[in-house]
Amino acid sequence: MKVKVIVTLKDGVLDPQGKAIQQTLNGMSFSDIKQVRQGKYFDIEVNIEDEKKAKANVEEMCKKLLANLVIEDYKIL
Amino acid sequence: MKVKVIVTLKDGVLDPQGKAIQQTLNGMSFSDIKQVRQGKYFDIEVNIEDEKKAKANVEEMCKKLLANLVIEDYKIL
Repeated sequence: MKVKVIVTLKDGVLDPQGKAIQQTLNGMSFSDIKQVRQGKYFDIEVNIEDEKKAKANVEEMCKKLLANLVIEDYKIL
Repeated sequence: MKVKVIVTLKDGVLDPQGKAIQQTLNGMSFSDIKQVRQGKYFDIEVNIEDEKKAKANVEEMCKKLLANLVIEDYKIL
C-alpha cells in the first residue's frame, strides 16, 4: 500500500526557502500572504498490505532517515 | 487562513531523488519498499478568511509559481 508523509520544519525554525517564495509571490502581485513555509512530501509504496504495519514501518523510516527530529516534524497521512 | 499544498511529479516523470532515498532505505534494512517518490509541501498563510477565496488565490500561486505544470501536479488540501 501507499503511505504519504509530510515533513515540516518545527515552529520557530527559520525557513529561508519559504521566505524567498513569499517574497517572489509578493513581487508577482500576490499581496495577501502572511507566511509561506516549505516542507517535504514523500509517497512511499511498501509491500505490506496491513495498514497499521505499513504505517509503523514508514514511521520507523521517518525517525531514522526522512526527518531530522531536532528541527523537523513528520506527519503520516 | 492556512492553505496546504502538495506538489508532486506526474506519473512517468523520473524521480532520481526518490530513487536515491529508496536505495538508502534498502541499505538500512527496510526491504519491503516498492517505490519512493518525493514531492514538495507548502504551508501558505494568507490574509483571506473566506476559504473558497483563499484556496482560489493559492491555486493561482500554484499555476504561476509553485508547480511546473509540464511535469508536476498540485493538490490543495
